[in-house]
Amino acid sequence: MALSAVEISKEEEKVTSEHYERSQWVLNAPDPPTTWHKLGGSVSNTISKYQEMCFALRSQHGPKLLLSFLRGIFPILQWGPNYSPTKFRNDLLAGLTIASLCIPQSIGYATLAKLDPEYGLYTSVVPPLMYALMGTSREIAIGPVAVVSLLLSSMIEKLIDPAIDPNGYRKLVFTATFFAGIFKAAFGLLRLGFLVDFVSHAAIVGFMGGAATIIGLQQLKGLFGINHFTNKTDIISVMKSLWESIHHPISADKSGVNIVRHIKGGLNPSSINQIELNNPHIGALAKIGLVLAAVALTESVAVGRSFASMKGYHLDGNKEMVSLGFMNIIGCIFSCYVATGSFSRTVVNFTAGCETLASNIVMAIVVIVSLQCLTKLLYFTPTAILASIILSALPGLIDINEAYKIWKVDKLDFLACVGAFFGVIFSSVELGLLVAVAISFTKIIWISIGAGTETLGRLPGTDVFCDVQQYPMAVKTPGVAILRVKSALLCFSNANSVRERILKWITQEEAKGKTEGNTGSTIQLVILDTSNLVSIDTSGIASLEELHESLVSSGKQLAIANPRWQVIYKLKGTNFVTRIGGRVFLTIGEAIDCNLDF
Amino acid sequence: MALSAVEISKEEEKVTSEHYERSQWVLNAPDPPTTWHKLGGSVSNTISKYQEMCFALRSQHGPKLLLSFLRGIFPILQWGPNYSPTKFRNDLLAGLTIASLCIPQSIGYATLAKLDPEYGLYTSVVPPLMYALMGTSREIAIGPVAVVSLLLSSMIEKLIDPAIDPNGYRKLVFTATFFAGIFKAAFGLLRLGFLVDFVSHAAIVGFMGGAATIIGLQQLKGLFGINHFTNKTDIISVMKSLWESIHHPISADKSGVNIVRHIKGGLNPSSINQIELNNPHIGALAKIGLVLAAVALTESVAVGRSFASMKGYHLDGNKEMVSLGFMNIIGCIFSCYVATGSFSRTVVNFTAGCETLASNIVMAIVVIVSLQCLTKLLYFTPTAILASIILSALPGLIDINEAYKIWKVDKLDFLACVGAFFGVIFSSVELGLLVAVAISFTKIIWISIGAGTETLGRLPGTDVFCDVQQYPMAVKTPGVAILRVKSALLCFSNANSVRERILKWITQEEAKGKTEGNTGSTIQLVILDTSNLVSIDTSGIASLEELHESLVSSGKQLAIANPRWQVIYKLKGTNFVTRIGGRVFLTIGEAIDCNLDF
Repeated sequence: MALSAVEISKEEEKVTSEHYERSQWVLNAPDPPTTWHKLGGSVSNTISKYQEMCFALRSQHGPKLLLSFLRGIFPILQWGPNYSPTKFRNDLLAGLTIASLCIPQSIGYATLAKLDPEYGLYTSVVPPLMYALMGTSREIAIGPVAVVSLLLSSMIEKLIDPAIDPNGYRKLVFTATFFAGIFKAAFGLLRLGFLVDFVSHAAIVGFMGGAATIIGLQQLKGLFGINHFTNKTDIISVMKSLWESIHHPISADKSGVNIVRHIKGGLNPSSINQIELNNPHIGALAKIGLVLAAVALTESVAVGRSFASMKGYHLDGNKEMVSLGFMNIIGCIFSCYVATGSFSRTVVNFTAGCETLASNIVMAIVVIVSLQCLTKLLYFTPTAILASIILSALPGLIDINEAYKIWKVDKLDFLACVGAFFGVIFSSVELGLLVAVAISFTKIIWISIGAGTETLGRLPGTDVFCDVQQYPMAVKTPGVAILRVKSALLCFSNANSVRERILKWITQEEAKGKTEGNTGSTIQLVILDTSNLVSIDTSGIASLEELHESLVSSGKQLAIANPRWQVIYKLKGTNFVTRIGGRVFLTIGEAIDCNLDF
Repeated sequence: MALSAVEISKEEEKVTSEHYERSQWVLNAPDPPTTWHKLGGSVSNTISKYQEMCFALRSQHGPKLLLSFLRGIFPILQWGPNYSPTKFRNDLLAGLTIASLCIPQSIGYATLAKLDPEYGLYTSVVPPLMYALMGTSREIAIGPVAVVSLLLSSMIEKLIDPAIDPNGYRKLVFTATFFAGIFKAAFGLLRLGFLVDFVSHAAIVGFMGGAATIIGLQQLKGLFGINHFTNKTDIISVMKSLWESIHHPISADKSGVNIVRHIKGGLNPSSINQIELNNPHIGALAKIGLVLAAVALTESVAVGRSFASMKGYHLDGNKEMVSLGFMNIIGCIFSCYVATGSFSRTVVNFTAGCETLASNIVMAIVVIVSLQCLTKLLYFTPTAILASIILSALPGLIDINEAYKIWKVDKLDFLACVGAFFGVIFSSVELGLLVAVAISFTKIIWISIGAGTETLGRLPGTDVFCDVQQYPMAVKTPGVAILRVKSALLCFSNANSVRERILKWITQEEAKGKTEGNTGSTIQLVILDTSNLVSIDTSGIASLEELHESLVSSGKQLAIANPRWQVIYKLKGTNFVTRIGGRVFLTIGEAIDCNLDF
């Protein structure tokens, strides 16, 4: 298999021409889509979704058209006709189970929301029925939830004190519910479902844990029958209240225990006159509606998604938002405050074997019957019992195992989790959420613009170049410095540091080589592997130019390997490619072959 | 060269065992440094810098030790002894040139800062001398600059009106200067030089353009001799003032032109008693000092760096900050307000052929002489002349070519530039800066967490897999979906979208294959190239697990190719690697070879 000298040189020529051809592939790539194109793309994507829908509808006629249209809006028309007695048996059982949990919880959560108990029950009637018609999840149990109830009262009581003007307070509650519904539906219709993802999993774990803690602390009032209890939610105010009540001891032995007393019977009254869009607090209410929408959506979509993926079906985030939004808009007309998917009842619904949303309908019917006939039976329920029912739902919200898992996987994620937790318990629910989101985004920025570079070496027996720290067996090529930027961006915030680090590293490497007496260690070629770089800005290009000039002044060459689409486009556009003599290559290996003669 | 069947099978065995071995390289990489380790690293890096310094000093004794120490603080002791007559001739020429520019500019900028003219001259004495002792740049010309002067007056006159209480106003100016100096020096001593990079190049271009525009508009007062002119800096207030003055016309023909009149002669008086750290406005002044420090550092370091890289030497950002900080701290004791490196005078200094910072000393001496002897000659200088001198320095700050270049390279960068420009001219200098920083960071987040994925194909004749859109000649492997996440992070904000996109893409691809009648298009293997991913969080891992489950339920396999250090560490730690059956490979090619039998 020995080749003659002519054959070898021909072989070499072939390799070189191949390398040249591939280098041209890199340089002559088609133009990438522009920013406008991308922005336009996401808008037109939204529009085309609706166009597709219209097109699908237009291909049908008359009653069929109407049915398709209604099926799109009300998924119950899809699964309803295939509904079987077996499924109904399972749904009936699950529905009765969650109803038994729902009635005391609803009364308890209504007190958290500083509303009369019947408003909790109302909220367990209309929203579940609406969601059963429109929702795409099969397991979510709809109704009032602890965190949203507390958040609602903590924000609205700053505007009107419910103890002084309960009627005015209720008006604000229904108006805020209306806004929450509008925001949810709008998010869905504009296909902004991805916004729910902006609260990280770690932040939710911390937020929920903190909220559960302060809800638990609030229950001390009911549990111990304390009459003068703080309206604030933070742990310091609550502890102070508790301390004071110990010094003015509890008087259950004299005055008897607190009981629920009268719950107004009868079905949901209309509250359409209580939604006041000309209210002086309208701006604050819109903001409260937005916060409530964000928290309620996060809870519901998170729980819905985890069960959907367990059962192996897909939950459309946008459709879900529309359903949850409409259920609140309709709800606020019938004396319901903000309802959403409940963590605790959804788990019970799932384990009780629900098959469809019919279990929500069963639950709503049981609540209706209770409202009509059974409110008198609840007269003597001690408030301490309600408090303990709320307390029993809380441990499920404090997920220490998950927090430990987050700690193990990612320390900065854990910081967001802990930040949210302490923000909620020491200040307010909104602040906790804000802290969590802020830490999450700071982390993204921190990682994205980190100025780290890594040295690459060839893995033995391959043409693959990898981080020499990750792969200790990787071998450095003598005379060549192969470096890769660790972040996805070479931009104003890291470009200068990256350039300085590269120059410093080269100086150190050469000095090291000299002390070892290795004359071959003089670096002739610096290859920058840009395969990571998604984008580069003007500062990034300027720093590459400065790097090139510094290298040239010390007799070195700069080569670029494997640039991505946007990056090579910009490097060409600013003539950087010409300036470095066209030394842009597809792979590191080719960059070495073409530039060094050993 | 035909191989027997036995040889082929042996060859195959060898390849498989090699693949297996390399897969083990990926899985058995050493543990990456932890977050604490990295955070600790940057702190210990700062400390070790000082330790190195101490160590270098300790190796010397007596007077030599003192000299080394002083040389570190005062670079003039390094270049001074080698100073030659030729260098002095060049520096003298350059110093006289910038002095001729500096005197009228200093008087003009003092009026921008709403101070008496002599304070501008004072600021051109002490800071240049201090910087000449401590600075590391060779070209920067120190003194008052237009943007900082305007920023100073626009922020401090909100606290005290200089027309009503000029003495109280001056106290605030010197106290703010003191804070600016402290902040600059602290940034340098804590080695936070990288913070200067957080204002992007595009933002600086827009900010400078906007500042130059409003400074120009302010000069209309002096140029037209308008007496009742607005104190606000935004374009709308200025235009309103101008409109009103047209209706109450200008009276130079009756009352003559405005002139500078008396400039107090003599050297800088002490102002140490005017620095009031118990001032009631102390909090606001500290904030103003921080903003001034940021703007002044940005201007000075940017101009210093560009000339240093032109002359091929390195400017130590941290040392520079310490020098600029000390020069302001010493300055505020001698009636100087915030001085920094001037764009316009530095360019003149460079083109006049300066060799060292001695040109700054020459300039300071000329200003001292002027203060002592020549202030009376300036008595009749019309203010209109000062206005036109300021105006003539402005075009250099409005860099339309650079803005056009930014537009060509990056539309979002251009948005930051335009945002800064309009923020400055329509609202305030601080708001413009804030807008620019906010847009720059939004862009980073936008790019970092984009949910884009790209499809990879094999480039003909190679083992390299690339984006099929960038390289139209790349060939997809039948039965295999090779995908790469475009961002550097798979985290809470994009993990769900990425998973949904991948699943949607696979569905579409299979549907396309079926309509084309290509039965081979059923996808058996999904390879996720994670070479881009710098980091993954708990949400990211959860979405990969969901992706894996969805794929398994439709009879597909998931493989991971080329994970980075942090990513494989976390995937191992959460048992994800075990769950996907250890299908982690070094390259895409090996992932295909090991998982498909064709």
